Amino acid sequence: MKIAVIGSGAVGLLYGARLARTGHDVRFLMRRDLQAVRQRGLTVESCDGDFHLDKVQAFGDPREIGAVDLVICSLKTTSLDEAERLIRPCVGPQTEILCLMNGFNIEPRFGRWFGPERVLGGLAFVCSNRGEPGVVHHLDYGRVTFGHLLDDRAKAERIAALFAEAGFETHVAPSLLQARYEKLFWNVPFNTICVTAGAVTTREILGDAGLCELARALMREVGASAEADGCRIDTQAFSDKMMSDTGTMGPYRPSMLIDYELKRPLEVEAILGEPVRRARQLEVPVPTIETQYRLVSFLDRLNRGEIRVEGPHAQH
Amino acid sequence: MKIAVIGSGAVGLLYGARLARTGHDVRFLMRRDLQAVRQRGLTVESCDGDFHLDKVQAFGDPREIGAVDLVICSLKTTSLDEAERLIRPCVGPQTEILCLMNGFNIEPRFGRWFGPERVLGGLAFVCSNRGEPGVVHHLDYGRVTFGHLLDDRAKAERIAALFAEAGFETHVAPSLLQARYEKLFWNVPFNTICVTAGAVTTREILGDAGLCELARALMREVGASAEADGCRIDTQAFSDKMMSDTGTMGPYRPSMLIDYELKRPLEVEAILGEPVRRARQLEVPVPTIETQYRLVSFLDRLNRGEIRVEGPHAQH
Repeated sequence: MKIAVIGSGAVGLLYGARLARTGHDVRFLMRRDLQAVRQRGLTVESCDGDFHLDKVQAFGDPREIGAVDLVICSLKTTSLDEAERLIRPCVGPQTEILCLMNGFNIEPRFGRWFGPERVLGGLAFVCSNRGEPGVVHHLDYGRVTFGHLLDDRAKAERIAALFAEAGFETHVAPSLLQARYEKLFWNVPFNTICVTAGAVTTREILGDAGLCELARALMREVGASAEADGCRIDTQAFSDKMMSDTGTMGPYRPSMLIDYELKRPLEVEAILGEPVRRARQLEVPVPTIETQYRLVSFLDRLNRGEIRVEGPHAQH
Repeated sequence: MKIAVIGSGAVGLLYGARLARTGHDVRFLMRRDLQAVRQRGLTVESCDGDFHLDKVQAFGDPREIGAVDLVICSLKTTSLDEAERLIRPCVGPQTEILCLMNGFNIEPRFGRWFGPERVLGGLAFVCSNRGEPGVVHHLDYGRVTFGHLLDDRAKAERIAALFAEAGFETHVAPSLLQARYEKLFWNVPFNTICVTAGAVTTREILGDAGLCELARALMREVGASAEADGCRIDTQAFSDKMMSDTGTMGPYRPSMLIDYELKRPLEVEAILGEPVRRARQLEVPVPTIETQYRLVSFLDRLNRGEIRVEGPHAQH
C-alpha cells in the first residue's frame, strides 16, 4: 500500500517506520529530519525492539509524494491550519486520510476539506519522542483506537488491520465521536493540570486530593458535553477508571507538559478550545474547562516569551 | 487611647506608627523587628511623608502588653490559628478588637473567641512592605473601610474617626459582610490569577481577553454567593467598576503575588477557601473559584518546596 506520512514528528516517524518495515511503500514529508534520513536512513529505538531502515523515502514537499492510498496526518494540531495545503497533493480519487492526532473536532475539518467518507481518526496511546535527526525513541505503549468519521466500521477495521500487521495493539471504536470524548476524559484533566499546577507529572496530581478533585470536575464536564452530544459514557465509572489507570501508569509526562518544558506551542485549541466551543454550541456549562482553557492559553504564550511581564520591583 | 498592634508586618507597622504619631499609647507585638525597633525606633518611609518614631513600645510577648482599649490584629491570615492566644492577654472587659486583615469570614471567628459585640473589621486598601528591620515602606493608597461584626454603626464610626485623625481616608460600611464580599470582588480574581497565570501583575491580566473573562467569571460567582448571603451588590456594575479601577491603578502586584515571589505562605484559605466553604453552605455553585482554590493551594506548597517533583527525564 502506498502511504504518505504528513508530519514526521515522534508519532509519524514511529508508526510510519513500522508500516515501512512491514513492506508498505511509505513516503514521509519531513522538515527537521530530511537531510539526516536521506543520508543515513531512520533509526527506531523501541521498547518493542530497535531497528533501522536504510532506505527511507523522505520528501520536503508533498507534491513530490503525489497521490497515495492512505495519508496519515500526524501533524501537531498547532499546525492544523497547514494540513489541507500539505495533504492536498497526496489525495487522489480513492485516497483515505487517517488523522493520527490529539484533541477534539479534528476529523470534521478534514471531512469538510476532502469529503467525510474518506476520513478516519486514530487515537494513539503512545509515549515517544525524537532524538537526534534520523532517530525516534519509542518509550512505551503504542495502542491505537480507530474510527471512521461516518462510523463506517469496515473502513475502520481495514486501517486497524494495517496497524495490527505492523505489530501494534489496535481497537475499533463503534463511534469516533465517542472515542474522541473518551480520550478527552484523560487529556483534559491530565495534560492541562500538569501545566496549570506548575509543570508537574501525573504523580503529583494523583498525590494531591485537591488536584484529583479538579481532575474529576473536568471529567464531569467532559461527560456532560458527551452526553449532550449523543454519546453514552458512564461518567462516574469512566472517571474512576481513568484515575486508577493513571495511577498504575506511574509518573507520566503528558505531551502538553513536554511541549511546555521545551517551550513549544501547546495543543491548547485541540484539547481545550474545541471542547469549550462545542459545549457552548450544546449549551452545556463547562466553567472548569473554560478556566483551564484561559489559563493554559495565557501560560502557553507567557512561556514562549510572547507576553512581557513587569519586573518584580516595578511597583516600587 | 491604649492600643495593641498584634502582628507587626507592613500593615500593622504602618497604621500603628501613624496612630502613635497622633499621640496614642501604641504597643506593638513584634518578632522580626523587635530588637531593631527597641534600639533605633521605627522609620516610616511614606508616600504621605517620611517620619521616625524614636521611642516605640515593642514587645515580644502579649502578656507584657496587657489589657488595652483597642487591639488591632494585623496578622497574616496564615497565622490566624495563633490569633486567639496572642490577643487574649490584651483583652479586658471594655477592649474592642479590630481585624485589619485580608480575606473572608475573619471577624466571625473573633466573635466566637471574644464575643461579637467587641469585634470590628478593617479592610485596608494599601500598598506597603517592610524594609530592613525597623523600617516600613508605605508606597501608595491607605484607605480603610470599617464595619462592626453586628453592624453597630456607632462603633464603626468611632474607629473610623481614630484612623481619620491619623490622616487616613476612611469609610464606614453599612454592612461588614457586604464590605467583605465587595473586597472579594477584587481579591478573588486579581490576587489569585496573578499566581495561577504564572506570576504576573494586574497589567498582564488586563491585557489578556481570556484572563479578563476569567476574572469576570470569578466575580460573577462572588456576586452569586453574596446575593445568596443576603447582600445587595449589582454584580455586573460592580465588576465593571473593579475592572476599570484596576486599569487606572497601573501595573499592580497583589499581596498574594508578592508572597508567592518571596516564597511565603499564601493567604489561600482566607481569600479562596473560606469563600468556597461559605458558597457550599449556601448551595451556590462556584466552580471557577474552586478551580482557583485547588490550583493556588497546590502552587503554594509546590512553591515552598513542600511537594517534590519528578525530574524532567524521569520517564526515560
